[in-house]
Amino acid sequence: MSEPIRVGLLGCGTVGSGVARILTQNQEAIAVRAGGPVVLARVAEVDPSKADAVDLPRSCVTTDSMAVATAEDIDIVVECIGGVGKARELVEAALAAGKSVVTPNKELIAKAGHGLLQLAAARGVDLQFEGSVGGGIPIIRPMKESLAGDDLLSIAGIVNGTTNYILTRMSEEGASFEDALAEAQKRGYAEQDPSADITGADAANKISILASIAFGNYVDVSEVDTEGIDKMHPRDLVAAAELGYIVKLLAIAKRLTDDKLEVRVHPTMIPKTHPLASVGGVSNAVFVRGRYVGDVMFYGPGAGSLPTGSAVVGDVVDAARNIRHGSSGRVPCVCAAKAELLPADQICSGYYLRMTVLDQPGVLGAICTVFGEYGVSIASVYQKRVEGRSADIVWITHKSRESSFRQALQRIDQLPVVERVSSTIRVEDV
Amino acid sequence: MSEPIRVGLLGCGTVGSGVARILTQNQEAIAVRAGGPVVLARVAEVDPSKADAVDLPRSCVTTDSMAVATAEDIDIVVECIGGVGKARELVEAALAAGKSVVTPNKELIAKAGHGLLQLAAARGVDLQFEGSVGGGIPIIRPMKESLAGDDLLSIAGIVNGTTNYILTRMSEEGASFEDALAEAQKRGYAEQDPSADITGADAANKISILASIAFGNYVDVSEVDTEGIDKMHPRDLVAAAELGYIVKLLAIAKRLTDDKLEVRVHPTMIPKTHPLASVGGVSNAVFVRGRYVGDVMFYGPGAGSLPTGSAVVGDVVDAARNIRHGSSGRVPCVCAAKAELLPADQICSGYYLRMTVLDQPGVLGAICTVFGEYGVSIASVYQKRVEGRSADIVWITHKSRESSFRQALQRIDQLPVVERVSSTIRVEDV
Repeated sequence: MSEPIRVGLLGCGTVGSGVARILTQNQEAIAVRAGGPVVLARVAEVDPSKADAVDLPRSCVTTDSMAVATAEDIDIVVECIGGVGKARELVEAALAAGKSVVTPNKELIAKAGHGLLQLAAARGVDLQFEGSVGGGIPIIRPMKESLAGDDLLSIAGIVNGTTNYILTRMSEEGASFEDALAEAQKRGYAEQDPSADITGADAANKISILASIAFGNYVDVSEVDTEGIDKMHPRDLVAAAELGYIVKLLAIAKRLTDDKLEVRVHPTMIPKTHPLASVGGVSNAVFVRGRYVGDVMFYGPGAGSLPTGSAVVGDVVDAARNIRHGSSGRVPCVCAAKAELLPADQICSGYYLRMTVLDQPGVLGAICTVFGEYGVSIASVYQKRVEGRSADIVWITHKSRESSFRQALQRIDQLPVVERVSSTIRVEDV
Repeated sequence: MSEPIRVGLLGCGTVGSGVARILTQNQEAIAVRAGGPVVLARVAEVDPSKADAVDLPRSCVTTDSMAVATAEDIDIVVECIGGVGKARELVEAALAAGKSVVTPNKELIAKAGHGLLQLAAARGVDLQFEGSVGGGIPIIRPMKESLAGDDLLSIAGIVNGTTNYILTRMSEEGASFEDALAEAQKRGYAEQDPSADITGADAANKISILASIAFGNYVDVSEVDTEGIDKMHPRDLVAAAELGYIVKLLAIAKRLTDDKLEVRVHPTMIPKTHPLASVGGVSNAVFVRGRYVGDVMFYGPGAGSLPTGSAVVGDVVDAARNIRHGSSGRVPCVCAAKAELLPADQICSGYYLRMTVLDQPGVLGAICTVFGEYGVSIASVYQKRVEGRSADIVWITHKSRESSFRQALQRIDQLPVVERVSSTIRVEDV
């Protein structure tokens, strides 16, 4: 049998420990598939209690991550530290030292991926990151390889399990945002500081990775129009359900006819019959539309030690195959340039809109007039309930330009008959 | 730019014409992804009218498929003829001549794949067949590559669009099997001779391919326990819906604890809440369970000229990348031996059972006694309707061994109070 391929693991937290477990427990099958043994040779971890969980001689465990990233006897470096600062330094050093690198670190790839991929290409090594989007779900390799003959048009994904869990509880049980978040934290689905999830920042990282792969120009995540779920009210989820919709935090990317991209993350009302509508709890799913293939969807667990570990080890096997065949870097980054994104205020979508108005004649007419002035066309309107002198009204608009819709809204909010505009949610038929 | 990779296409029917169109129309993007141009250089087609649809000089089109399969100036042969006889000869000749081969031909791969893959490995070339299962849905590469670190436990798939369309119409509109089949033929979803679809033979080919990849031993498709949908009655679909189930033609493969496999195709009642339950019409979906990744699902169009063409061209890009990197054959077949399948009569599953009995006291007791003698345990029983002296009764059993269930059924069928046993359908919680 050929020489073992030696793996150095940086970080032994949630995903790192899963990677260590799979590499150890499943090593026989992995050796068959990789054309020879793949061994976990070194682990760098600052917390000795985490390192203890790995089945390795003490001498192979160190706190010096840079030593592992650049060690002469390491072929593949697996970065499971997270974040950008230190992880970026280590990945750069590993690539520069001619190691192939595997990482599930979405923030690193979203914010520094283009430069790192260029470095990998220059050194003729692999930089793989299947675990960075959708946890264990195969999505990045299918897009880069299986769909490499296609002409991809759009992507719509539920790529953050925490927010999907919160929205599922809010919509199925009428829970408030705060209670659903607390429940998610109790179950370990949300961090103590959940801001990266609930603000949509995590989903923005992921959609910028997917959009870069799909459309061949890299997306600057800081330009992605991003809105979180922290302002969602259970009353809107109920209204959505009554209208045949469900609200999901969608990450959306579309290629427009002029080759600009539209990339955005926001709570979105989609028809209940859409395949993404039935993706509940912490599950993730990515819906991809290709000119030739039509609509395909990839579904599964979006996070977790072993699911994400499975994706990372899949990448390790691929990198190992490339090392054995002398073909490292065979699927490089082909992003030519920075993608030009459509400015947020030019994006078109339908809108759901809930407002409280005075319950008196002429109110609907007054509001419709303002919409009409800004070219916003109404698909439907429902009076939801009356309380004292006030009534709740729900509107659904046809596709409108964001800027027109916002201007109309500002005017409507100033009408004397309008007490307050409570919420707006974009409506998509994806 | 590097030398073009030259593709020879055998057969220009439904899928072949899709392949030709994508290779031509999308050639710029394909060249970027493949690291250099990939050109459709020759086409072999016996029907000149089909060849006319391809945008190639007359001199590149021939009726001599063997000449294209072995031509010196061809790097990748795409076989879109179908069936085993001639296609097998051509693929063998192409592999022997050192060409990489791409084919969406499920029958060929299911029946002759193991030998062809060994030939490809011996010659150090690729034999790729993503389009053979699930049309355009990426499933084979994700299983061989993305999930290469995992330990796969089971697969359950809707892998035949024709039968899924028929069952969807029967269950949503109460259509008879014959009417739904006629409608499928009218819409071009079913062949004039639909037997390969409705008998389950097509699905058996596909699940034997997936099971071979998932479990590392090759499955002999002639040993797959296969039952079609031609005996399905709309009444059973209605009863299934009332009980919270839906009936799908599922292709199922499981690895058992003793490393034997269970591989089977049959109409199956699954809970309405299962992700496969919402896969309607001609769509396909494959649900894969891994020890580490958990449950993932791949969904999309299971057939068609362009969707399947997309999968084929994805394989062509992959084979082209390997040629450029000198890494052809980097993901070889790793099936060690022929898989041992559990004999059909030892398979365990739940059963749905509809029968007509005399409407008189003691009937249920008499039937229960027989079930009890054979160790078949009843989960629930419903009386469906009474007509004159007869009543329709529906049973659902707990998991039982096929042989015990069939023996019990034979005895029950002979009871004087039983007029007839109308249908049995297996029940799975997959």
